[in-house]
Amino acid sequence: MKWIAENLRKVREKRPLVQNITNFVVMNTTANALLAIGASPVMAHAKEELEDMLRIANALVVNIGTLDEWWISSMEKAVKIASELKKPIVLDPVGAGATKLRTQTALKLLEAGEIAILRGNFGEIKALLGEHGKTRGVDSAGYDKEEALNLALTAAKEFNTTVAVTGPIDYISNGKKVFVVENGHPMLGKVTGTGCIVTALMGAFVAIDEPLRASTSALAVFGIVAEKAYEEAPYPGSFHVKLYDWLYRVDEALIEEKVKVREIEP
Amino acid sequence: MKWIAENLRKVREKRPLVQNITNFVVMNTTANALLAIGASPVMAHAKEELEDMLRIANALVVNIGTLDEWWISSMEKAVKIASELKKPIVLDPVGAGATKLRTQTALKLLEAGEIAILRGNFGEIKALLGEHGKTRGVDSAGYDKEEALNLALTAAKEFNTTVAVTGPIDYISNGKKVFVVENGHPMLGKVTGTGCIVTALMGAFVAIDEPLRASTSALAVFGIVAEKAYEEAPYPGSFHVKLYDWLYRVDEALIEEKVKVREIEP
Amino acid sequence: MKWIAENLRKVREKRPLVQNITNFVVMNTTANALLAIGASPVMAHAKEELEDMLRIANALVVNIGTLDEWWISSMEKAVKIASELKKPIVLDPVGAGATKLRTQTALKLLEAGEIAILRGNFGEIKALLGEHGKTRGVDSAGYDKEEALNLALTAAKEFNTTVAVTGPIDYISNGKKVFVVENGHPMLGKVTGTGCIVTALMGAFVAIDEPLRASTSALAVFGIVAEKAYEEAPYPGSFHVKLYDWLYRVDEALIEEKVKVREIEP
Repeated sequence: MKWIAENLRKVREKRPLVQNITNFVVMNTTANALLAIGASPVMAHAKEELEDMLRIANALVVNIGTLDEWWISSMEKAVKIASELKKPIVLDPVGAGATKLRTQTALKLLEAGEIAILRGNFGEIKALLGEHGKTRGVDSAGYDKEEALNLALTAAKEFNTTVAVTGPIDYISNGKKVFVVENGHPMLGKVTGTGCIVTALMGAFVAIDEPLRASTSALAVFGIVAEKAYEEAPYPGSFHVKLYDWLYRVDEALIEEKVKVREIEP
Repeated sequence: MKWIAENLRKVREKRPLVQNITNFVVMNTTANALLAIGASPVMAHAKEELEDMLRIANALVVNIGTLDEWWISSMEKAVKIASELKKPIVLDPVGAGATKLRTQTALKLLEAGEIAILRGNFGEIKALLGEHGKTRGVDSAGYDKEEALNLALTAAKEFNTTVAVTGPIDYISNGKKVFVVENGHPMLGKVTGTGCIVTALMGAFVAIDEPLRASTSALAVFGIVAEKAYEEAPYPGSFHVKLYDWLYRVDEALIEEKVKVREIEP
Repeated sequence: MKWIAENLRKVREKRPLVQNITNFVVMNTTANALLAIGASPVMAHAKEELEDMLRIANALVVNIGTLDEWWISSMEKAVKIASELKKPIVLDPVGAGATKLRTQTALKLLEAGEIAILRGNFGEIKALLGEHGKTRGVDSAGYDKEEALNLALTAAKEFNTTVAVTGPIDYISNGKKVFVVENGHPMLGKVTGTGCIVTALMGAFVAIDEPLRASTSALAVFGIVAEKAYEEAPYPGSFHVKLYDWLYRVDEALIEEKVKVREIEP
């Protein structure tokens, strides 16, 4: 898995400009995460400036964590423009399954253009596949290891994209191959926006590699970052701060020492 | 006051889902505070999804810290739906008295449904009672100990709800009983959104206890948290971080050691 | 440069109320920075309450970091009202040059009223002067020391205001005089909203001194704060936290020891 460290090096060299249309809760969080890892974030949602911004951006991240009709139409327009401009798009269907609006908006965005990576938790991806959403608010619930693998594969084929089903163990599939990531730490569940951070980081990685390896790299790197942050700070406020420190500090040697990624037969 | 530690235990056991319609400044802050104490936050404001979300939520928190006509109508709708669904509602009238829009919006929300807890500072609650608002922006000003007690009692009767007037000493009343909380620390005034954190925590507590004890529990627990945070970090940035650490760490023993809550004759 | 420490003392004595219409990414960041230095922030953007809020405010800060038509009209109205009320206005044209919408909005706001201070990075101010924007997203790019000085002078004359062109070295001019600030630290570039913090601090200082000295004071004080923060915490998450600590701790003695401000011939 040499390509994970390699991808991190490329992100820091290229400093991809990642355009984000994301939720109010995590705008600061994800901007700081992108800066800390060495990418360059921008947040713009006005329809009038989407094309200008996407022309200079290297990737688009769309996160539906806080929605209303205005933002939905902005997200749709951004997905269309980015698809035309061949900029890779990452979609985070936050809360799909919790409300019909979220499920439908995520499905609409999957239709609106070329989504490179879809990242969600177990309940969210399940809801998008039309099964009864076990989502409880925006938390992961009802996670099942065996089923998560299946979910990633099925969703990847159904939506013709790369799907990352994240949870205690992450499964990433493009419908043909499957990667499994076992890095991470439960304390991530005690800080808001850590799922959104991973999605944003995928935006940085997909600017320099293909979707399956890009999303796996983001999950592995952030998982390792979380492990180191917890070693230094086992409480959520300090842990949160250390996440940015370690996004900045993580390097090839640390990845080599800590990485728990494997490919499995689908 | 055994019920304070008891209530904290219940919050952590039940992990209530608290639906927040709050201001842009503190969305991240209050979501992290709710996670740290062991509750589960969700932020949703689209009118189309309010009912779906409130059906699975255990409480609603409405905070008017940043307003516009769109958000006001969303808040009104949420208060109506939550009332019909018998979900307890906490209202934070941020900045009432500073502008007519804020005073009127808070009064409108008090009319729109069944508010379980109204939490504000001295100037805000005073403004809602029609007296000249001494509010200066969103800060507390003109606080007076004797008057604060009276204010809590009068407002509780006037609005037929539980009112928490917070400041150097907090007075909480349901119009019949009065609790006084003397926990807390002045450094809270140097971090934005600490009042909003208490309001959000009341949302978690009111999901598992009646309004008077719920709001008193939130104030006592967060006051103790602030005292511990200050012991470790006497400057605002680090203090802010430690608030989340201590929301996670606070336990029965610490509450027993530190709590300064008493009931007084109204 | 005795007036820098003097200005800090005045901010803490007067605690100016700074009304902010700013972007979603940094609302929490700038509110906390203003509180930490001793000022009092308020965030209000509803057109119906702008006049009420500006009447009690001591300065207005407008930051175009996240835009849409609704917010643009609110910013315009705020600039007009503040001008009529003779409240000093600070404008941060975030991302001017990156999109036409941002360049045009900044120019429109410069026309809409009396702007006391315009603070931007090299590419942003250049774009406002009609030259090809070298802005890359919202980062500074294409910075050139000689040219930065010229840019500050030219823009100050062109827009008839005080202009601060910030970067590795900051140049501040009112068209007649020029100050140079060499305080600061490159780690500021790894935390989102640090430029927006300086703009917000200028709002506090311009409430107690004239624009040229006010903006220079803000840049010097925050530069020193960044240097101290970096001494204690050389990684972005912890560094960010220490910024608020040092905004609170910075005092006359520290300013005297560290300040690198000089006046140069234009």
